[in-house]
Amino acid sequence: MNRVYNFSAGPSMLPMPVLQRAADELLCYGESGMSVMEMSHRSADYEPIIADAEAMLRRLMNIPDNYKVLFLQGGASTQFAAVPLNLIGRTGKADYAVSGQFSGKAFKEAQKMGYDVKCIATTKDDNFDHVPVITKDMIRPDAAYLHICFNNTIYGTKYPYIPDAGDVPLVADLSSCIISEPVDVSRFGVIYAGAQKNMAPAGLTLVIVREDLLDYADPKMPTMLEWKTMADNGSMYNTPPCYTIYMAKLVYEWILSLGGLDVMKQMNERKANLLYDYLDSQDYYIAPVKKESRSMMNVTFVTGDAELDKKFAKEAAAVGLKNLKGHRSVGGMRASIYNAMPYEGVEALVAFMKDFAANNPKA
Amino acid sequence: MNRVYNFSAGPSMLPMPVLQRAADELLCYGESGMSVMEMSHRSADYEPIIADAEAMLRRLMNIPDNYKVLFLQGGASTQFAAVPLNLIGRTGKADYAVSGQFSGKAFKEAQKMGYDVKCIATTKDDNFDHVPVITKDMIRPDAAYLHICFNNTIYGTKYPYIPDAGDVPLVADLSSCIISEPVDVSRFGVIYAGAQKNMAPAGLTLVIVREDLLDYADPKMPTMLEWKTMADNGSMYNTPPCYTIYMAKLVYEWILSLGGLDVMKQMNERKANLLYDYLDSQDYYIAPVKKESRSMMNVTFVTGDAELDKKFAKEAAAVGLKNLKGHRSVGGMRASIYNAMPYEGVEALVAFMKDFAANNPKA
Repeated sequence: MNRVYNFSAGPSMLPMPVLQRAADELLCYGESGMSVMEMSHRSADYEPIIADAEAMLRRLMNIPDNYKVLFLQGGASTQFAAVPLNLIGRTGKADYAVSGQFSGKAFKEAQKMGYDVKCIATTKDDNFDHVPVITKDMIRPDAAYLHICFNNTIYGTKYPYIPDAGDVPLVADLSSCIISEPVDVSRFGVIYAGAQKNMAPAGLTLVIVREDLLDYADPKMPTMLEWKTMADNGSMYNTPPCYTIYMAKLVYEWILSLGGLDVMKQMNERKANLLYDYLDSQDYYIAPVKKESRSMMNVTFVTGDAELDKKFAKEAAAVGLKNLKGHRSVGGMRASIYNAMPYEGVEALVAFMKDFAANNPKA
Repeated sequence: MNRVYNFSAGPSMLPMPVLQRAADELLCYGESGMSVMEMSHRSADYEPIIADAEAMLRRLMNIPDNYKVLFLQGGASTQFAAVPLNLIGRTGKADYAVSGQFSGKAFKEAQKMGYDVKCIATTKDDNFDHVPVITKDMIRPDAAYLHICFNNTIYGTKYPYIPDAGDVPLVADLSSCIISEPVDVSRFGVIYAGAQKNMAPAGLTLVIVREDLLDYADPKMPTMLEWKTMADNGSMYNTPPCYTIYMAKLVYEWILSLGGLDVMKQMNERKANLLYDYLDSQDYYIAPVKKESRSMMNVTFVTGDAELDKKFAKEAAAVGLKNLKGHRSVGGMRASIYNAMPYEGVEALVAFMKDFAANNPKA
């Protein structure tokens, strides 16, 4: 077995102790006589797994009691529709900040569905090289919610603060930064996240929703997208993605064993600093993101020469630094360094970057 | 490791060679240097996996070229909404046959969403102990589709034939009988199925849709439920449930290695016959389903005494025959004997049933 460092934006690396435990338990889980993959979601064997997953996540994120935790399917993209279907009934209109491709898709989805939505801020004209400034006075006071994408995977940006939306509930896509550092859940009305970046394999979507926001669902909406239905049924209105929830539980357990999100943040900062400090110390690579908007999870850079960028990604892969190619919509390079990426992986990347720069002088 | 025989209705048993291979490859897949769980869905490592999954399923089910195969999320319950959202625009109305709980839910979902739907046949008054007779003249000629549930997991019934809907496209939920025997796909407009009974762990939904039915989607519907969007993007409009698709691929590969669906049907018939023949040979247990509607996958029976039923399920579990309790809505016992249940499991069940009957004479 020769494991690589996988810088994929998602699905992405999982912690080795988690993978090892999953492999050990795959044929037979504890005394159950079966794989977790084979367990009925309503069985005494499975119930503690989903209960523990929720309890551990609540402990990890310090989720207040008046928030429901839902384990769903369909990815963040399904929530782009579920958010207005569940919430816009509160006042009939909603505001969006567009800081990249996914927040743009969320906005367009609500528009397509015929809702009264407004883009109150965007950094599109700057190629999304920073996140927009959001102040309370920009938000319509009668908006049902303000939607943001907290960390922008493709561009490598993140809000350096939680925007103050006043009395308007803040709804945030945290797919690419969830459980990477502590976050004050009470500042949000709804947090949602695809699991495949920092929590589990693909196929699980987490929704954390304040209870008072469960009562505005469109009565004609698809039942499976109704948060209230899922909350009332403990995420088991139908069969949940049981095995992926088990994998998430193992990941939560791993982070708790390390000391929780404060420790995770320190580890992630140390990795990100290593890479950003190197980027700031040289001029072969350009880091396009404005410093105050830099993401700790997704670090983007370019050589300024598309052919060199291509060579970089190819040669890096050949030495076991895989998936460094930037998103197809922006090009360049992107190193996604989520929780499971070891410090040594970033060290190896920086060493490779130095070698590559030395071996490939620009014209 | 002491594996049990797991008669769960779903999630349910997976073939041992499949679980063994998944365990062997869990930390590192081939030369990729990573787990399949960690692979970017758009990487050269992952692409052959989803391509092979589709190719193998097409071979297995003999799916005609004018049908799209979609690997989705959300379970059959999500398709209860997706079916009318994608299809009812064809004519504005749709017909349903209600043969159990899930077909009832599908009907109610379309009703709730405000559509003109009609229940053309139901066996509700007979406690769903058989499937309804469906003839062409019962179907509205201008129905956008006729919806049926082909195998009813909870009651243990199945249509003994594919109903003739004439020119009206037949839409069928095959969750609990898919790939258990050959089926003429060309007789259906749409087939859908949750994977967690006969194909993979929970978290994957298969949709097989005739191409000419992709053009009727409600323009305001959630994009993630649009079959056309998913078909145009090869099931990768967003991140698919990559690992669960890989597990399905291993299952398809296993069935192909055994000889395909003809062989699978023989194996399943042999198991079902063993159990039904025993049920028909004695009068301690009652099999409530009418013979012509019997399911090959889900076999229901009762002692006629709720306390004895409870004792049966409990004592069976204690000797490694787990999850024999019937669905909470109907009680009694249910043995789900999907593809992965070995013949020896059904033998062990029948032996236990004989012992239990001998040891627990009725008053």
